[in-house]
Amino acid sequence: MRRVFIYDTTLRDGSQGAGISFTIEDKIKIVKALDSFGVSYVEGGYPGANPKDDLFFEQMKKVELKNAKLTAFGSTRRKDISVEKDEVLKAILKSGVKTACIFGKSWDLHVKQALKTTNEENLKMIYESISFLKSKKLEVIFDAEHYFDGYKSNKIYAFEVVGAAIAAGADVICLCETNGGTLPSDIGTIVKKTITAFPAVKFGIHAHNDSDCAVANSIVAAEEGCLLVQGTINGIGERCGNANLCSIIPSIQIKKGYECVSNKNLKKLSEISRYVNEISNLIPNDSEPYVGKNAFAHKAGVHVSAIKRAPETYEHIDPSLVGNSRRILVSDLAGKSNVVSKAVEMDLGIENAPEKVKRIVEIVKAKENEGFQYEDADASFFLTTKKALESFKPFFVLKGYRVAVEKRLTGEIISEATVKLDIKGKEEHTVAEGDGPVNALDHCLRKALIKYYPEIEDAVLTDFKVRVVNSNANTAAKVRVLIESSDSSKSWGTIGVNENIIDASWQALSDSIEYKLLNKSKK
Amino acid sequence: MRRVFIYDTTLRDGSQGAGISFTIEDKIKIVKALDSFGVSYVEGGYPGANPKDDLFFEQMKKVELKNAKLTAFGSTRRKDISVEKDEVLKAILKSGVKTACIFGKSWDLHVKQALKTTNEENLKMIYESISFLKSKKLEVIFDAEHYFDGYKSNKIYAFEVVGAAIAAGADVICLCETNGGTLPSDIGTIVKKTITAFPAVKFGIHAHNDSDCAVANSIVAAEEGCLLVQGTINGIGERCGNANLCSIIPSIQIKKGYECVSNKNLKKLSEISRYVNEISNLIPNDSEPYVGKNAFAHKAGVHVSAIKRAPETYEHIDPSLVGNSRRILVSDLAGKSNVVSKAVEMDLGIENAPEKVKRIVEIVKAKENEGFQYEDADASFFLTTKKALESFKPFFVLKGYRVAVEKRLTGEIISEATVKLDIKGKEEHTVAEGDGPVNALDHCLRKALIKYYPEIEDAVLTDFKVRVVNSNANTAAKVRVLIESSDSSKSWGTIGVNENIIDASWQALSDSIEYKLLNKSKK
Repeated sequence: MRRVFIYDTTLRDGSQGAGISFTIEDKIKIVKALDSFGVSYVEGGYPGANPKDDLFFEQMKKVELKNAKLTAFGSTRRKDISVEKDEVLKAILKSGVKTACIFGKSWDLHVKQALKTTNEENLKMIYESISFLKSKKLEVIFDAEHYFDGYKSNKIYAFEVVGAAIAAGADVICLCETNGGTLPSDIGTIVKKTITAFPAVKFGIHAHNDSDCAVANSIVAAEEGCLLVQGTINGIGERCGNANLCSIIPSIQIKKGYECVSNKNLKKLSEISRYVNEISNLIPNDSEPYVGKNAFAHKAGVHVSAIKRAPETYEHIDPSLVGNSRRILVSDLAGKSNVVSKAVEMDLGIENAPEKVKRIVEIVKAKENEGFQYEDADASFFLTTKKALESFKPFFVLKGYRVAVEKRLTGEIISEATVKLDIKGKEEHTVAEGDGPVNALDHCLRKALIKYYPEIEDAVLTDFKVRVVNSNANTAAKVRVLIESSDSSKSWGTIGVNENIIDASWQALSDSIEYKLLNKSKK
Repeated sequence: MRRVFIYDTTLRDGSQGAGISFTIEDKIKIVKALDSFGVSYVEGGYPGANPKDDLFFEQMKKVELKNAKLTAFGSTRRKDISVEKDEVLKAILKSGVKTACIFGKSWDLHVKQALKTTNEENLKMIYESISFLKSKKLEVIFDAEHYFDGYKSNKIYAFEVVGAAIAAGADVICLCETNGGTLPSDIGTIVKKTITAFPAVKFGIHAHNDSDCAVANSIVAAEEGCLLVQGTINGIGERCGNANLCSIIPSIQIKKGYECVSNKNLKKLSEISRYVNEISNLIPNDSEPYVGKNAFAHKAGVHVSAIKRAPETYEHIDPSLVGNSRRILVSDLAGKSNVVSKAVEMDLGIENAPEKVKRIVEIVKAKENEGFQYEDADASFFLTTKKALESFKPFFVLKGYRVAVEKRLTGEIISEATVKLDIKGKEEHTVAEGDGPVNALDHCLRKALIKYYPEIEDAVLTDFKVRVVNSNANTAAKVRVLIESSDSSKSWGTIGVNENIIDASWQALSDSIEYKLLNKSKK
């Protein structure tokens, strides 16, 4: 089986993406996760470029890795100075890594426009920088920046750059599609010609997604013989992002039979994708291939009924291979078969009761017209259905609430809520403060319920998202609140919709607690 | 110049995506936008499948299109009945379109598992359905569903399916990569072999993105000779989406020289992408190639300085070709050059004052540590900078506010706010109700200010987004509010961050108004 080495640059090139800012603790967590996932290299940062990265490498000296080699990124020496005096090369040595990845120019335009030097000096910069790091016993990966644009502009010079890196002893020459503009057929041709010209060396590929082809370009390059693939988790990175390792790894491992990580570790792919999204505080892309929430989600009624008979009819791989799972979506495009599937999945016991199915389909449609969407709120769907079937005995009834937020002249902000509930026939009236109005309401609700239902202590809110539902909306438009909750054994999503953000939050909050209580009482 | 026909299925296959639900009015708006953009075909829906689509085609009879042919989607006739009795084919005829696109099975597994019929009956279904529509003078596109999986499983049968469609007179045979599992090299090979076997016919491609290769697969198929490309705006669609026309069109038109739309219309690409996002109420993908907000955004300091000298150093195309533009991002990874670029763009007059630049960089970094991000909040960045430079004279000073939301036993919800401001030395104390607490605050603020600054009447809030900033957050964590505002001449973004959603909203609200006032007073 052919081996392809995975080189992760989430922490360096990925962190250049808009909206991304990792703390040192974030970076260390991600390195550990990538190491246990089994990638071959983790590029930790750019020592010397900012103090955060220097501190990161310092702290990493205490961390032991099982699978991955920690790599420092840097550039070839600056023009017209000696390697010994170059700050970047010194910082790489100081970082304590055993593998360095340095980039150099392979496009003559860049040599002239960005470096403002001669083609000859650039070749010297590459040769001397690599030789210097090799003399210090480092493994050296050479990133030939803008290789494909360079090849198209001046093939001879691009080859001279590769030749200089090889002569200096580079362990891998990584061909970089820096601007992301090259299409797959050109990538295939240029990689093939380059490998043919330099048959004795290991090549790699580093692609960007500006033409929406970064994954395809990486796969084509691997097919043509590149043995190392650089990319980032979830494809994060500057502009349109880097090549997405979450797509490349399963594609080449499952479909081409190239070994990247163990098949056992491949099952952690969806988890590592979610983990990096969480640490980066990025909204997950639900449509992300292989690992996204909707990657194996089925909405069209005809698909749903076919897939039950033979999964391969509408699924290109078994989702469990990458740690993902099939989802059946409930929506107004969905036929009854989706509602029935969902009901079976949730054990609602209605699959043989067409009248009940019809009633639920009607209720779901009416709710969707109001702005509800159950795709991310399984628990609210479950409760709505239960209530529709009159098989639901409420745990508490709301009599009213009041929330006040006051900002005083001192700048101090007070949030206070009161809630009046009927619980098992008794009126409970509670008051509580919180860090904000929703938090204060949550405290009130729990304060009232805990005597009756101590099991709620175990449930916590883990995420809270708000969107205006209407397009062209102003603050008076409808607001949709999604709350994610979890306890020691599972997590669940609930939804609230109202013109008033407080009431939308209340709906999602109380659904969250009701779902917890219902699950408990079933056991 | 080679012509490639663009076939848009946003309204049919795209609407199968999770979270998407178009009204009839939405659909008509999108048809008109696609028509003026200049695609060749717009697939409007699946008549007979749901009443909404029937009504849509009915209403479309009154709409005249300049460039696009309106197409109805459907399946081949059901097994063992005559074409005259088939409900789907009857609905297509009733829809009044001049072009139909019908899908049939080309994978023997599906014939057996999904249709539960024989391979022979399936060929008859295809032949008879196409012949029937041709006899009614329709242009017929045949979607060979699962063609690539079918070819891999039973090439002879896949060819028989294509042969039956050709014999029946289909105008285009569209090869569908329905499950999205095939990689570009296999797509290239299979398309080439198919076109070689049937040289006299027009072929098309329809790709899904489950392997993150839908765009690349479509481009490769076009290179191998497919003359029609099906896809959706922004790649919306079931699971991981359809092939993204916003990536395919510029790639093949600008880079391959195939003509899809006029070069003048190509400049509307970013606008049509935003328009469909808005109508679908989808959060735009800022990293979307060509049309995303960040597609030409530069964050790394080294890129920013190079790009000023020669744009092609880090941009694969001129962003104006697709109606997009370059952005310089302000973030803690950014060097001073980004802050200076931004300051020049905003006309802050600090580019030659290194001390001021240093102070602003420090302030921005401190704010970012608190959870602020200025990438979507240019107006707040502008105000923060102005305030840091002490060149800002406040239009009003907050003395305090109070917000109360009350839900009564009747279910009625009241939101009331009071705000105390110092405006030009006078105290203004206002009270107002609203549809929610933020709306009530907005009303109070405007009520107090309007006497002094009547120009605020012109500014409205157009979007309101809330996210929890910390990962693993609960409702007590920090909340980030982004507000988008606009007046008759421009739109601007502001941000607020606080543990309390009300105060975060207040910050973004008051920044929005202050920015409006500042812009007015400059003129």
